[in-house]
Amino acid sequence: MKKYELLAEDIEALIASGTVKPGERLPSVRHTISARGVSPSTVFEAYYLLEARGLVEARPRSGYFVKHRPALRNEPQAADPVPESREVIINDLVLEVLGAGHGRDVVPLGSAFPNPALFPLVRLARSMNAALRDLPPAQLLEDLAPGNSELRRQIALRYMGNGVVCSSDEIVITSGAMEALNLCLQAVAQPGDAVAIESPAFYGCLQALERMKLRAVEVATHPRDGVQLDSLEAVIRRERVKACWFMPNFQNPLGALMPLENKRKLVHLLAQEGIPLIEDDVYGELYFGVRRPPPAKSFDKDGWVLHCSSFSKSLAPGYRLGWTAAGRYARTVERLKLSSTLSVSVPVQLGILHYLQEGGYDKHLRGLRATLNSQKDAALEAIAMHFPTGVRVTQPEGGYFMWVELPPGLDALALQRMALSQNISIAPGQLFSADQRFRQNVRLNFGHPSAAQLAPALQSLGMLVDALTA
Amino acid sequence: MKKYELLAEDIEALIASGTVKPGERLPSVRHTISARGVSPSTVFEAYYLLEARGLVEARPRSGYFVKHRPALRNEPQAADPVPESREVIINDLVLEVLGAGHGRDVVPLGSAFPNPALFPLVRLARSMNAALRDLPPAQLLEDLAPGNSELRRQIALRYMGNGVVCSSDEIVITSGAMEALNLCLQAVAQPGDAVAIESPAFYGCLQALERMKLRAVEVATHPRDGVQLDSLEAVIRRERVKACWFMPNFQNPLGALMPLENKRKLVHLLAQEGIPLIEDDVYGELYFGVRRPPPAKSFDKDGWVLHCSSFSKSLAPGYRLGWTAAGRYARTVERLKLSSTLSVSVPVQLGILHYLQEGGYDKHLRGLRATLNSQKDAALEAIAMHFPTGVRVTQPEGGYFMWVELPPGLDALALQRMALSQNISIAPGQLFSADQRFRQNVRLNFGHPSAAQLAPALQSLGMLVDALTA
Repeated sequence: MKKYELLAEDIEALIASGTVKPGERLPSVRHTISARGVSPSTVFEAYYLLEARGLVEARPRSGYFVKHRPALRNEPQAADPVPESREVIINDLVLEVLGAGHGRDVVPLGSAFPNPALFPLVRLARSMNAALRDLPPAQLLEDLAPGNSELRRQIALRYMGNGVVCSSDEIVITSGAMEALNLCLQAVAQPGDAVAIESPAFYGCLQALERMKLRAVEVATHPRDGVQLDSLEAVIRRERVKACWFMPNFQNPLGALMPLENKRKLVHLLAQEGIPLIEDDVYGELYFGVRRPPPAKSFDKDGWVLHCSSFSKSLAPGYRLGWTAAGRYARTVERLKLSSTLSVSVPVQLGILHYLQEGGYDKHLRGLRATLNSQKDAALEAIAMHFPTGVRVTQPEGGYFMWVELPPGLDALALQRMALSQNISIAPGQLFSADQRFRQNVRLNFGHPSAAQLAPALQSLGMLVDALTA
Repeated sequence: MKKYELLAEDIEALIASGTVKPGERLPSVRHTISARGVSPSTVFEAYYLLEARGLVEARPRSGYFVKHRPALRNEPQAADPVPESREVIINDLVLEVLGAGHGRDVVPLGSAFPNPALFPLVRLARSMNAALRDLPPAQLLEDLAPGNSELRRQIALRYMGNGVVCSSDEIVITSGAMEALNLCLQAVAQPGDAVAIESPAFYGCLQALERMKLRAVEVATHPRDGVQLDSLEAVIRRERVKACWFMPNFQNPLGALMPLENKRKLVHLLAQEGIPLIEDDVYGELYFGVRRPPPAKSFDKDGWVLHCSSFSKSLAPGYRLGWTAAGRYARTVERLKLSSTLSVSVPVQLGILHYLQEGGYDKHLRGLRATLNSQKDAALEAIAMHFPTGVRVTQPEGGYFMWVELPPGLDALALQRMALSQNISIAPGQLFSADQRFRQNVRLNFGHPSAAQLAPALQSLGMLVDALTA
């Protein structure tokens, strides 16, 4: 971590602990220089970073002040699922509900995707063009599964930057993270097996379990801290769990982030039990804090963690380029890939490789994170202002989802239908568990609507909730 | 069909029947004009077509003559498989054998792919560039599964040209034909079910059955005419067949082409029995005759045929763009696609669509067919010249595979190892059945080696066969 990032982190801790309160002035630049023994530019960069993240604001000729935040809502409680495996039947509902909310005139609060306008599409197109211009024909066959070796090396280098030791041999390029996750699941579980998942869980995970006739065991998952390890231990004691499928970083739909120490304990526990962990980390790059939260994979010594990610949420939506570093299952996954879809499009691999080699990915990510963070703040403010009291909402530290708990008695599917009639889509909580338990919850995507759409749509939604509650 | 194509077809029939013999002169242009009542350009185009296909040659100031062909080898016999379903265990062998034959210094007679140098890669790159230049960001999400609607319409129009009535709604875009075939198999069969396949069968089919824990029933397949319907009927009487997976056009590995009447009977029989037919038609465009052989799907009235194809063998290898028109299973396949790999890369869809809209695909195909046809002739000549007597070989009317039957006692895997030590890859027959029965056969790819590599490599291979036989 750079000096200015360390400094920013320290100041953030002062704000979080209330040592410096909203409206108060930060220590002056001159004071900080002498107190920390750093250069002026380090202090300025730290203050810029805090400003970009919406924590402080500059006042002309006065310095930097801690921003006033609206009174935020309480966060929802963790669910208390039954620690028993069950059959999953969710696909029909997911397709029906998600199929309804399309069209360019709909405000996509229910979308699973980021706003594609936030991505460097022109530069990507140029990279595709450059990569294809002098392509040796033979390469179109050589870069079939497991994928272009230089692209895999670039991904391995990024892993190294995130504290994960992983050789490029371990990496298999896939058609988005979705294929990576599905191949990993096939590699570790057979029809009828029980798989531990979060509660609530990403519906894509539930659909995969349903298609492969696997049984789901839901594990209590805290809206801020993610998977509760005591709940997981209880599940493992009761059921023969063949795998876990978790999202430790910015879980979908909660936005929860597992503390580092919990990740370490999780990996240790599962390695002891010989249970593979399929780690879905597609939102890991979209952090609002100072540094990327390391994946659970960073604690993996024995190859029990199958880490899956993609560029779909961070760089190139619709390009369908993902990968897995599947630990001891890497060769099994490669073989499954070969015999099911053979390979990812070679032009796409080469185009994204060219982009990564040109540089600029990290700069793009900084801008994307700042945008998502400020849209998160705007969404939280709008909810605080327009939703009836009693509504709870998570305050995610990354990603682009928040999880809302509606007032008692209000059904999320009913709200979804009403909202759609006003051209607003939402993702009702029913989609996020095997037993459609989360009737009173809604997942909102604050990163897909434009900044201009966000507050008005949330205002309308708040009025709907109010009307339905009354 | 155009007039000159009709005329060429008639003359081809005269040659095939021996009415006009090798070395004899074709009727003069003037004679044909008056006899057929056609224009001079029609006659010239017909003769050019026959020349391109290697059937006739022009001699200066003398006219067109039927070419002398070397004495070709007999074709192999049809196999006589046991009509009982069995477990498939082939994946290890396939990966081991195919994994060995890579590298740019190896003559790829064992390759499954066409030579990528035969494809319009520069024009494709330009189309990719044009499609991405002004791409509306929202389209990156709108064209996810089932795929871009205009691309599906273009594919539906090509179906219409081949006698298949199919709406674009029936079409799901997939990651190559491989994913299409696998999704179709998932849509119609469950673990433990029996699936009828050809004997020999494409190893990709065997791998799919193995991965999905399906049982294989092999059906006798003639090296020239493909699936034998009496054998199929016998299989259906004995076993509860849940699906058929066949390649009626230029079967891999035989190169066999089912006669039109057999396709009609096949579709009729399966519709009566309520058995879905997964039709792998990836080589259909690579015909050496006058017109594209219609797929079995052209006889499908009730949606029992799931037709699968791609651009990988005909236009854009390595781009991984395929599709299925899955009849009554179209929606099931779409849902499986959504929950397993979500979608094919949108840039790839739009690039290929742009190429198709620009025109030139059919012109490219004519050149590709002529090249493959002349390489087939060269391969047959080289085999006739250099392989010991007793070796049999198919004479395919399309695609780029021929199937060789080695002298008794010679093991194809042993030959494969010896050939590799001379930097020649071949595909041993053991890969093409669930019980590794075809020990005495080899699949040769005459379309991947360059024209210059082909004859010398076959000469070396012939000498090896000779040495191993002696």
